[in-house]
Amino acid sequence: MSATHTAPGLPEIEQARARLEGVARVTPVYRSETLSRLVGREVHLKAENLQRTGSFKIRGAYNTISQLGPEQRAAGVVAASAGNHGQAVAWAAREVGARARIFMPQDSPMAKVDATGSYGAEVELTGPAIEEALAAAQQYVADTGATFVHPFEDERVIAGQGTIGLELAEQLDDLESVLIPIGGGGLASGISLALRALRPDLHIVGVQAAGTLPGGSGYTIADGIAVKQPGELTMGILGETLDEIVSVTDEEIAEAIVLVLERTKLVVEGAGAVGIATLLGGKVGGTGPVAAILSGGNIDASLLIEVMRRGLAVSGRFLVVHTRVVDRPGELAKLIGLIASQRVNVVEVEHRREAAGVPVGETGVELTLLTRNRAHCDELVAKLREWGYPVTRLD
Amino acid sequence: MSATHTAPGLPEIEQARARLEGVARVTPVYRSETLSRLVGREVHLKAENLQRTGSFKIRGAYNTISQLGPEQRAAGVVAASAGNHGQAVAWAAREVGARARIFMPQDSPMAKVDATGSYGAEVELTGPAIEEALAAAQQYVADTGATFVHPFEDERVIAGQGTIGLELAEQLDDLESVLIPIGGGGLASGISLALRALRPDLHIVGVQAAGTLPGGSGYTIADGIAVKQPGELTMGILGETLDEIVSVTDEEIAEAIVLVLERTKLVVEGAGAVGIATLLGGKVGGTGPVAAILSGGNIDASLLIEVMRRGLAVSGRFLVVHTRVVDRPGELAKLIGLIASQRVNVVEVEHRREAAGVPVGETGVELTLLTRNRAHCDELVAKLREWGYPVTRLD
Repeated sequence: MSATHTAPGLPEIEQARARLEGVARVTPVYRSETLSRLVGREVHLKAENLQRTGSFKIRGAYNTISQLGPEQRAAGVVAASAGNHGQAVAWAAREVGARARIFMPQDSPMAKVDATGSYGAEVELTGPAIEEALAAAQQYVADTGATFVHPFEDERVIAGQGTIGLELAEQLDDLESVLIPIGGGGLASGISLALRALRPDLHIVGVQAAGTLPGGSGYTIADGIAVKQPGELTMGILGETLDEIVSVTDEEIAEAIVLVLERTKLVVEGAGAVGIATLLGGKVGGTGPVAAILSGGNIDASLLIEVMRRGLAVSGRFLVVHTRVVDRPGELAKLIGLIASQRVNVVEVEHRREAAGVPVGETGVELTLLTRNRAHCDELVAKLREWGYPVTRLD
Repeated sequence: MSATHTAPGLPEIEQARARLEGVARVTPVYRSETLSRLVGREVHLKAENLQRTGSFKIRGAYNTISQLGPEQRAAGVVAASAGNHGQAVAWAAREVGARARIFMPQDSPMAKVDATGSYGAEVELTGPAIEEALAAAQQYVADTGATFVHPFEDERVIAGQGTIGLELAEQLDDLESVLIPIGGGGLASGISLALRALRPDLHIVGVQAAGTLPGGSGYTIADGIAVKQPGELTMGILGETLDEIVSVTDEEIAEAIVLVLERTKLVVEGAGAVGIATLLGGKVGGTGPVAAILSGGNIDASLLIEVMRRGLAVSGRFLVVHTRVVDRPGELAKLIGLIASQRVNVVEVEHRREAAGVPVGETGVELTLLTRNRAHCDELVAKLREWGYPVTRLD
């Protein structure tokens, strides 16, 4: 970046809101009865996953791009992103009639490549790492004079994301705490600047994904906040505005995704679920009303399937067992019939003549079953053993 | 039912709205850019899946139960349902402080049994068929004097559902058509009565699930509208108010569920997706703005997983192939390495020494792979054959 950036104030955030009027959705806030009961306090969800393009990112991108002059718009805008920021820049550029070039890592999910292209951007796939996309974007800026739109280190971007804070303050009169995901820190900076100004006593918590913190595995399913280096500008702001920063594991995030999906009918991506994961894990204090920012809903469908399968297994509604039957016609049918008598649905049967540990004359069988809850799983496993089947649970 | 019921008029629907104020959510309407582009006309979604309890049913249930006198409330309310209606009656009864007893078929998904119980109702599981739950409910009425709440054959229920029509008329100025799911017909009756009164020229379309129509398989994934006998009252109304009735297949419904989930971040159940399925299938005429009622979001998580897997396979993002490798150390690793070189993710490997059609000295391998699109699938299959692997596609 060429310019020096400073934290935006409330006036800049209010100006951003005026620019976004009729462009970004004022996303709804829902009180979730189930989550409130589970957590023991009033839980509100700011459904920014229902924002245009599926994430909050258009607020900052549009607030930035709409301030560019005619020559800058004519030269176009450029971004490097595998995800939400790229889609947002593509969308915002189209809204103002600017050209957009988005550099994406080679293995970006096709759904995201397609979505970005569908907003009219030129999409260019680079090498597999985001750094290569970034280098290509910077080269493109040098070659063409296009404007690089940073995902977070820019006061216009931060002011745009801050409009969520203005909405929240109007939508909820009585609020003790708010939970905001932290990746690069643009979202958390913007919202916390707005709320510190409007509600000085609010308890503001930033949430990170444990997987990509120092000492973590280096991976997180919350790819929207998997940022190697948080911004200098944003971290400076967050040092002033946040009361605390907590972190959640991928296991906790996955559980939150499934719960939000099943009980509120909203699809959230990993980053969008970290606030709920924090509450479910009892990682933040207080008993008063709390709001979680569901920052986005752009989760890859195949990842969502895996997360849901895991969620069902954890809650005992999905059981995978290995057993053996005598290698004789009718024996498998008998087993399946016995299972059906327990009102259990069979999803998959894997029948293997030859498998490690299975004696000659017997056949290994792997069963994937739909069960009602943990007690039902235990009951079924006990029954199978009672009937003489050696059972190993695999889930 | 003891009382004779007649169609409610606009005044009854407006009274219902007044009763529901502050109780039911005024659900948002979203314009979907992706769906509009795919269908070639402006598509709006009335997100009744975001209604309390996850479906529109509380509108009719609350409008009915809140009109009961003190003695009737004290005697309690009763319903027979495996799904949304039972949850809605439980919820509405709690809101007015009445006891509720809900009879549910034995194999109702645990998530629905739990949800119904969590609203404070007494849940009783009966035999597997809904008719048994219904008989038990009627016996309970005879024994206790409780009030039976019918899911659709009641003008108070119809008037409650009709409040969606009032909201829609205010939320969308310019509308050519509306698509409404038909099961028992209460939702379609209420909405169409309201809209006929307010927008006489609107093209109103009812949508049924083909699976449970005469000549169908008898099954549909749209369990919310899988009703054996539509109501006399409702069918009489619909004969007057609807312009046409169309039907959609489970395959079309599944595709619509996946598209709505991925692109709008909303979870819809089968019944809630039939309007979008109608549009995607080109089954309704016109070019002007159209609204689909997303009636509910209570889809069983295991069914949703199956629907999503199928959806990914149809769009070429999930590929299952069977092949063979020579039964020698390193051969499987070589195959996996070659696949990885094509930037394909391997989800599952099934390795079977002995399988039908596999010659001695070779091993059957079943691979589940994540691909980018149809072209990528075809390319990969061609590559595998080029490398000498005999490939059968299983998806």
